[in-house]
Amino acid sequence: MFINLEETAEFLKNCDNAIIITHQSPDGDCIGAGFALKDILSELGKKSRVVCSDEFPPRYDFLTSTGAGDDFEPDTIIAVDIADTQLMGALEPVYGNRVQLCIDHHVSNTGYAEKTMLRAEASATCEIIYDLACLLGVNISDHCACCIYTGIATDTGCFKYDCTTVRAHEITAELMKKHKLNYALINRNMFDVKSKGRMKMESAVVELMEYHFGGKLTIICVTKDIMERMGVDSNELEGCASLPLQVEGVEVGIMLKEREPDVFKISMRSANDVNVSEICRTLGGGGHAKAAGCLLEGTIEDVKERLIETVGKVLGE
Amino acid sequence: MFINLEETAEFLKNCDNAIIITHQSPDGDCIGAGFALKDILSELGKKSRVVCSDEFPPRYDFLTSTGAGDDFEPDTIIAVDIADTQLMGALEPVYGNRVQLCIDHHVSNTGYAEKTMLRAEASATCEIIYDLACLLGVNISDHCACCIYTGIATDTGCFKYDCTTVRAHEITAELMKKHKLNYALINRNMFDVKSKGRMKMESAVVELMEYHFGGKLTIICVTKDIMERMGVDSNELEGCASLPLQVEGVEVGIMLKEREPDVFKISMRSANDVNVSEICRTLGGGGHAKAAGCLLEGTIEDVKERLIETVGKVLGE
Repeated sequence: MFINLEETAEFLKNCDNAIIITHQSPDGDCIGAGFALKDILSELGKKSRVVCSDEFPPRYDFLTSTGAGDDFEPDTIIAVDIADTQLMGALEPVYGNRVQLCIDHHVSNTGYAEKTMLRAEASATCEIIYDLACLLGVNISDHCACCIYTGIATDTGCFKYDCTTVRAHEITAELMKKHKLNYALINRNMFDVKSKGRMKMESAVVELMEYHFGGKLTIICVTKDIMERMGVDSNELEGCASLPLQVEGVEVGIMLKEREPDVFKISMRSANDVNVSEICRTLGGGGHAKAAGCLLEGTIEDVKERLIETVGKVLGE
Repeated sequence: MFINLEETAEFLKNCDNAIIITHQSPDGDCIGAGFALKDILSELGKKSRVVCSDEFPPRYDFLTSTGAGDDFEPDTIIAVDIADTQLMGALEPVYGNRVQLCIDHHVSNTGYAEKTMLRAEASATCEIIYDLACLLGVNISDHCACCIYTGIATDTGCFKYDCTTVRAHEITAELMKKHKLNYALINRNMFDVKSKGRMKMESAVVELMEYHFGGKLTIICVTKDIMERMGVDSNELEGCASLPLQVEGVEVGIMLKEREPDVFKISMRSANDVNVSEICRTLGGGGHAKAAGCLLEGTIEDVKERLIETVGKVLGE
């Protein structure tokens, strides 16, 4: 059942001893939403605890350092920013089928919870959490403001992406007006800082870029040999697939990663209007319009040839 | 004479045939402010023309494509975003001593104009231009909205830096509500896109990074040999001095560029609280707290040794 903001506020007023579940591979929005909601419930005199199948990454210490919360037998199970129970990871068997309230902004939300507060047009779950806090009339602590800001900033790429809403800017203005919010430091840690290894790996990946069709298509081939030489595994390379999109004129960026001899995992990214989900579907894969993938078999030369030909057609080359 | 927003609006209502000067090496804020002001003057039925000592970079075509403006004998000279007449470049001899109105947000503004509308707390001159448009009650075109957004976004690093104001977010929310504003595309072009050469150069520079004091200090030495091998000159390397600040844990980043044998230009950047202006002053240079420089003579080993020792003391190492 989908409920509105007023009904969600009513639910929160009437609950207690709440487990707040965040999704696996936790990011700024689910951590921000989880810990902000804990602050709000605490203001309402309720006990709550934030849980996750994975450890919260240390760079979010400034949000999580208030502690995961109270210890109790839960009466209420709330999920934040979780579109599908599968995203609970190892916590799915424990909580998956007994979530009473889900607060989320993903259009793909499966409606698995008893009650779902879904605002698909919101740029972040933290936007909804802020509006809930206002509706409930609770005091928003500086920590709670930090949580909400971090969720909005990380999910919008610091107000950069087209998911950024008017409300995201309005809420930020309100938070900045009333709270001690070291947004410059938060943004530096969220967006500008990389580990030494990551920095080195990215520069090595840039060296591997090959340009086609006058630079509209960029291909990066990472064989097992190269991964070994760089000292990284396939997972660590994940975020590098979008590096080619930083290059002027690139429409499609492709990363080929050797999974086993003659089997390649393909990650395809689009800078603008090319729908890479459609391209990957013709190759037996799928995904989103701007980020998709597939698995291809053959020698590296054959696989590259096939990708260049397929993307070339879409680019009108 | 410093004037307020109302007086500035009054000035604009009473002027005509206005030259709008932007600063040399034009950036998003002065171009945005210049072309937005031209739109506003046009709404008021006035003629105006935007001028600059340098060409406007092609990536600002979406702002400048409305044309520099009308042709006329100027009656009014207005400067936007120019703190000092020196920043007019080749236009200084023509206009430097006869600017009637300056609209600016730089605290360092020298007050060279007859009348100066200075709002030093504004994150961008475009913030002031927006407030002027509202006060004048003129229609803000989509193009004018794009100009204002671009100025605010570029001067705040897309709302990332600590100069970002509440007003910057409020204005952006208002612009997004009322206008066709392709902010995601603007931001991609302003912040994410680099030339192939730049991309390659940055990755080469990352390879040169040396870490000291457990990674608190990073040094990049670029000799003439290396520049030749990379195919870049000293000027092109300018922006690379802040690359080390992207690395987790780095407090100070130093770039040494060989100017001539045994003479090195030092660029020093601070990630957080270290005042590199003070460090550089002890070495005969100067600058800002987070970005400073000096010139050092000696062999590359001696110069590095001296820098490591000096910075080490400040870092308490």
